[in-house]
Amino acid sequence: MLTVLKTGGNVLAQAFRLDDALEAFGKLHGPKVLVHGGGRAATSMAERLGIEAKMIDGRRITDEAMLEVVTMVYGGLMNKRLVAKLQAMGLNALGLTGADLNLMQAHKRVVGEIDYGWVGDIDRVNITTLLPLLDAGIIPVVAPLTHDNMGNLLNTNADTIASELGIALARDREVRILYTFELPGVMTDPMDPSTVVPEMSPDTYRKLKNDGIILGGMIPKLDNAFAALTSGVKEVLICQAPMAAQIGSDHFVGTVLRL
Amino acid sequence: MLTVLKTGGNVLAQAFRLDDALEAFGKLHGPKVLVHGGGRAATSMAERLGIEAKMIDGRRITDEAMLEVVTMVYGGLMNKRLVAKLQAMGLNALGLTGADLNLMQAHKRVVGEIDYGWVGDIDRVNITTLLPLLDAGIIPVVAPLTHDNMGNLLNTNADTIASELGIALARDREVRILYTFELPGVMTDPMDPSTVVPEMSPDTYRKLKNDGIILGGMIPKLDNAFAALTSGVKEVLICQAPMAAQIGSDHFVGTVLRL
Repeated sequence: MLTVLKTGGNVLAQAFRLDDALEAFGKLHGPKVLVHGGGRAATSMAERLGIEAKMIDGRRITDEAMLEVVTMVYGGLMNKRLVAKLQAMGLNALGLTGADLNLMQAHKRVVGEIDYGWVGDIDRVNITTLLPLLDAGIIPVVAPLTHDNMGNLLNTNADTIASELGIALARDREVRILYTFELPGVMTDPMDPSTVVPEMSPDTYRKLKNDGIILGGMIPKLDNAFAALTSGVKEVLICQAPMAAQIGSDHFVGTVLRL
Repeated sequence: MLTVLKTGGNVLAQAFRLDDALEAFGKLHGPKVLVHGGGRAATSMAERLGIEAKMIDGRRITDEAMLEVVTMVYGGLMNKRLVAKLQAMGLNALGLTGADLNLMQAHKRVVGEIDYGWVGDIDRVNITTLLPLLDAGIIPVVAPLTHDNMGNLLNTNADTIASELGIALARDREVRILYTFELPGVMTDPMDPSTVVPEMSPDTYRKLKNDGIILGGMIPKLDNAFAALTSGVKEVLICQAPMAAQIGSDHFVGTVLRL
């Protein structure tokens, strides 16, 4: 089983959490891909540069100045630090954006009610060169940037990148996607970790959404996750980063999504 | 013939020059590697962040804050922009630092009279994974960063990276290195472009150095270049970036170094 693990900005922002997360990632058997965010670091770098971070509905508006920041922070600072840390663990990591190896081609999001700026919607994932690298034991570390094949980089949601990569790889491999974040899974009461939903089907999801129990930023995440399942990904798990080491054991706590 | 082309910060800083440089790079036949600097952009980003750039003898002192800046600027901004531009030209570029694929392992420079900080001296170049990628038509774009295999990135001179990569590749391939910069070659009078030295042997170099005609930043560049030649690199050329397209033709202007 090939694993695509997505880790979010809250994990990346704290060194001790990050080390735990990477240790768990290292323990996963089989070929694996790490997809990272870095929104918090980008926001803080933008602040230091006197650039105002604009958000609408949890999505970043990426003007020219912010594109420069995310290119530096996602593609440089975050990505290269992760690669160096994985190499130190003996894992042969390779940092990538969607421009590298033409991995993910996108178009600048069409302006509707909102102009998101330099944000990419993925058109094509090209894994031709990635597959032999995975077979050779290389571990791709993917930053949330794509390109438009006209020379421009585009800021792209990391959850979407994880699901699109998972879907593309699922055409050739058995794939599971792990969305890791600071919470122990999908919870019916966000204040009570004991309310983690252990398994979720599209029906359960619909019900919990209609009842207003699942809301906010969780909805696009789960939409992404179920889209991946309907497109060939075998399994999607949502859990805390260190829990990745416990997959398949009785100690695993988190939400498993299946069709 | 495999070409390692190094392009410096002065070229990278101006978009029109950069486009010319990349166009010439694109015209080079055979497998090729692009090595880039980015010192000017790093200095300007450091200024914007209120970080003082410290230089001694043209070499940057890399404290913690400056390591963050060069990781962002070299590994992110410069590298990913170059990769996106090359992809737009139909060249399948792959951005790398020394940490990616464990390409270049280094140690933190030993503190002597000067403490250079987070600067790397290269111990090992590992091209095992690079060779099949080159054979597959992939074009590595290498940022001047190495790693110590203990999780730390290290700032490393781009000229040195070009020569060390060239030397490592020369064990398996016929290699030439092209150092491109803003001048038309090694000149006996830096104000007069007609004084370009067309060919240079170690003897000529020694003489010109002893006579005080070659001096300053040109000396480490040429030391690097001749070290590459004595270690198996077939040819080293020094010229302006767009001139790369004219190699082998009568229109070529630049300095060719041979043993």
